[in-house]
Amino acid sequence: MAAVALVQGASRGLGLQFCQHLLSHRAPVAVIATCRDPDGAPALSALAAGNPSRVTVLQLDVTREEQIQRAAERVRSAFSGVDLLINCSAVLHPSGKGETSLRDVSAEGVTSTLATNTVGPLLMAKYFAPLLQKGTGQFGRQPAEKTKQHNGILVNMTARVGSIGDNALGGWYSYRMSKAALNMATRNLSIELGRSRPKIVCVSLHPGTVDTDLSRPYHKNVPQHKLFSTQYSVQRLMEIIDSLSMDKSGKAYAWDGSEIPW
Amino acid sequence: MAAVALVQGASRGLGLQFCQHLLSHRAPVAVIATCRDPDGAPALSALAAGNPSRVTVLQLDVTREEQIQRAAERVRSAFSGVDLLINCSAVLHPSGKGETSLRDVSAEGVTSTLATNTVGPLLMAKYFAPLLQKGTGQFGRQPAEKTKQHNGILVNMTARVGSIGDNALGGWYSYRMSKAALNMATRNLSIELGRSRPKIVCVSLHPGTVDTDLSRPYHKNVPQHKLFSTQYSVQRLMEIIDSLSMDKSGKAYAWDGSEIPW
Repeated sequence: MAAVALVQGASRGLGLQFCQHLLSHRAPVAVIATCRDPDGAPALSALAAGNPSRVTVLQLDVTREEQIQRAAERVRSAFSGVDLLINCSAVLHPSGKGETSLRDVSAEGVTSTLATNTVGPLLMAKYFAPLLQKGTGQFGRQPAEKTKQHNGILVNMTARVGSIGDNALGGWYSYRMSKAALNMATRNLSIELGRSRPKIVCVSLHPGTVDTDLSRPYHKNVPQHKLFSTQYSVQRLMEIIDSLSMDKSGKAYAWDGSEIPW
Repeated sequence: MAAVALVQGASRGLGLQFCQHLLSHRAPVAVIATCRDPDGAPALSALAAGNPSRVTVLQLDVTREEQIQRAAERVRSAFSGVDLLINCSAVLHPSGKGETSLRDVSAEGVTSTLATNTVGPLLMAKYFAPLLQKGTGQFGRQPAEKTKQHNGILVNMTARVGSIGDNALGGWYSYRMSKAALNMATRNLSIELGRSRPKIVCVSLHPGTVDTDLSRPYHKNVPQHKLFSTQYSVQRLMEIIDSLSMDKSGKAYAWDGSEIPW
């Protein structure tokens, strides 16, 4: 049976690259790619057109609970389970610029960022956990002992700036708060879905500083060797995913495998 | 000049007790007490009626940015500054019950909890930070060195269950996530308002397990000696507030002064 991977937020950036990587490097994996507006996602459409038997594109706005529920029903009717779910969609701030000071903070900006970066991924977990429990554990590392094996892996894309303990610079209120809350969601999910049978590995992953639309306005002070292509970042992140097992669940890891403090 | 303390969420529970404590133990402090519905807050009204020259009650729904702004304007016109701001209002979940599993999670429940527990306190900081910078540093401990002194103290009431690292039980998704994000706000505020001149001390405080409406449904498994009255909890929290200085800013402390991991 082919492995099934679902990438939420697959129209561009890391999400799109996860789809490309899975198609190129994981022959017979089936990829379910979700995005808010498939008609406005030419790169994903091209990828799907080039791999018609392996890519399923689903419309899904992560801020709309009923759309998440409907997507989960469609996946359930077409696939027996999901082995890997990666929550990728994120905004820095609806304005495109992170707050540099309290003056820039607004209720609407914080609320909207939390909706996409935090509430959305948690709702994905709610509706897709039953499908991950029906996965066949084709990603990650399985220990010999049956009771310690997992059926699925859930990845929330976080960011080092979402670490409270690591925060020495301040600013970016909405984004930092959304990722700290997402990390709490990861931790909570790892407990609930680690107690359950079948089990799901839940982690937060930090991709490094990657050349994407989200972070591009902030690259001028990043040394060249620390600015990753999406290809490099996804390759390193997939190495981490390949190494995951239940005993690594409930933590945040950077692209190099190091653990990030909460 | 009398010290000025503002308690946000003062209609009952810890907020009300902070007001009572400040009036009884801190003679000539002026107390500004805000709550969503002053007409539906009989205990606070009685306290204000008994201390007409020292208590100012202001209507303020922490989920309405324009009401926070209006309250700040009223405080600015009546007081020269604020020495202490305590953000108290919080909900466990709009249903009154924390989620026991993913099945109980809803977009509306998470969003509404974040609005009261997280976005509200951050907006309070936005509009009241200029007033805290005009405080005269009458709470906390002041070092001899002028440049290390603070003008105001900002307290966000957090909870141990908002610690990601301390989370071993799971559940209560909305509440835990809201407090983790609030802790990030505290950290961010401590950086921005610690760099500024004048400076503001910013901390998160955990009151212990206190007999309030929020937590009462969960008390049956709490040993009697670990269940605090609001009086005892506020007394211990005021001891911590009295010990604060800039070098303690940006952290989370429990009622006994111990630091809580993020």
